[in-house]
Amino acid sequence: MNSANDTEIFNLKIYLSKQKSHVEVALNDAMPNEDTRPTELHKAMRYAAFTGGKRIRPILCLAACKAICGDNSSAIYSAMAIETLHTYTLVHDDLPSMDDDIERRGKPTVHVVYGEANAVLTGDALQALAFELIAKSTTSPEQTVMLIKELATAAGSCGVVGGQIEDLAAIGQTDKELIHWIHLHKTADLFYAAVRMGGIAANASTEELAALGKYGQSLGLAFQIIDDILDEEPNESTSTIQNSETTCLATHTPEEAKLLASNYISKAMTALKVLPQNNLAPLKAIAEFVIERTI
Amino acid sequence: MNSANDTEIFNLKIYLSKQKSHVEVALNDAMPNEDTRPTELHKAMRYAAFTGGKRIRPILCLAACKAICGDNSSAIYSAMAIETLHTYTLVHDDLPSMDDDIERRGKPTVHVVYGEANAVLTGDALQALAFELIAKSTTSPEQTVMLIKELATAAGSCGVVGGQIEDLAAIGQTDKELIHWIHLHKTADLFYAAVRMGGIAANASTEELAALGKYGQSLGLAFQIIDDILDEEPNESTSTIQNSETTCLATHTPEEAKLLASNYISKAMTALKVLPQNNLAPLKAIAEFVIERTI
Repeated sequence: MNSANDTEIFNLKIYLSKQKSHVEVALNDAMPNEDTRPTELHKAMRYAAFTGGKRIRPILCLAACKAICGDNSSAIYSAMAIETLHTYTLVHDDLPSMDDDIERRGKPTVHVVYGEANAVLTGDALQALAFELIAKSTTSPEQTVMLIKELATAAGSCGVVGGQIEDLAAIGQTDKELIHWIHLHKTADLFYAAVRMGGIAANASTEELAALGKYGQSLGLAFQIIDDILDEEPNESTSTIQNSETTCLATHTPEEAKLLASNYISKAMTALKVLPQNNLAPLKAIAEFVIERTI
Repeated sequence: MNSANDTEIFNLKIYLSKQKSHVEVALNDAMPNEDTRPTELHKAMRYAAFTGGKRIRPILCLAACKAICGDNSSAIYSAMAIETLHTYTLVHDDLPSMDDDIERRGKPTVHVVYGEANAVLTGDALQALAFELIAKSTTSPEQTVMLIKELATAAGSCGVVGGQIEDLAAIGQTDKELIHWIHLHKTADLFYAAVRMGGIAANASTEELAALGKYGQSLGLAFQIIDDILDEEPNESTSTIQNSETTCLATHTPEEAKLLASNYISKAMTALKVLPQNNLAPLKAIAEFVIERTI
């Protein structure tokens, strides 16, 4: 069976639904209970974590693990950590001092429900939880240290936080290189880390990790471009990932942007060629799904 | 040479000055350069990290490592991580939505200089950096994973973030148990983690780690009580660690509070008895210094 057939017979909708449920069950077990003190904080953390996200990052992490012939159990803590970290960035991005969003995925944002100070602290606690979850990983200590490095780098000042601060400063800018830099760090760094962490959990080789990283980074860049396009074409069925002020549509026509995203998806597909070909159907189908969101 | 003599001949002032300098040189090397993009964020991170703190937590980490016959180099990344994490909590605690402090250690707070959104992101990046620093530790992978667990637990929703959220909610409260809970988590948890992390870096036994933990927790509780007392007795030479609204002076007279702090210091000293007695002078002298701040 070749990989093209793999993708044809692979039902992405069922796969995404199953993996989303798997991640959410695990997260529900792993997150602090609402009855545990401080109860208000734990309620806010759960409110933030369970607001109907697509769980695309943790699903990519699990899919990358599977691609290197690992199993879900070795990557589930990484998957949860990636999602917890992503959730904290959304809580902080929505703050009045940042994007000042009062609604996310059709529900009031954390600071609207719990107050601004509590929303800052909810994000802070979620970030700490992300690292706590990795430390509980069933991977070897060597792998766990690698996982911490991946997540901390993606999360830090040269990763998503760096992307967000440049995004805030870039309102009204039309510098292509700057917008690419923002997309790379605000969005793609976490996709990059998600698939590499799945690979690390499956004991991937350096070459395999590099390929997964290229796939994740290209996919993340395409994802952000498509998101920018969807932001311009309101569609009730599509929730916005980040209410970015800096969009690639400031520098590209929608057609050019679609072509750019399509090129990134081609790069992502090409990167997969050096990997074992047996278990690539999920990664391929997710890449196709990201670009098809424009059609 | 017995331990009493050790303390007598030990010059704490010189020790603190030397270790503070050691921590600051290491931090200066380890923190992202101001010329590296995003430059504004890196400037703000360095501004927050170099505002004249006493570096008591990283010094305790190094002293605990020495107490278990380890050397500075095995604990220096943990020491930096503890200080970086502490720094992020100060940046967020000072925010307008929290304590709304415009000055810390005689200098404008981060949000005053860099704006509120950037201050949130500066704290976020510092927290990620704390975990990145531990992941770079020269300890064994097994030790590094233990270090991550210690820091993440102390940093999380049942640690300093939990303490801060209950502190914000407790304004005007006079419930002794509640105030103790807040002190325990807002302040003592990071002291607890600091000394245990020093111990882990020196390969301490479970019994030694428990003793270090008791020392750190008791010292942290005494430290917060003394801080509450000093807050009530303005003294230009003493900078406030946290501008807490919830003070033990709401439930105790200053004399009762001093006695309580003194009892915690005695507990801290007692905890040290199970440790090797050769290298305890710094930990003992720091405990005495904490209580002497009231005289």
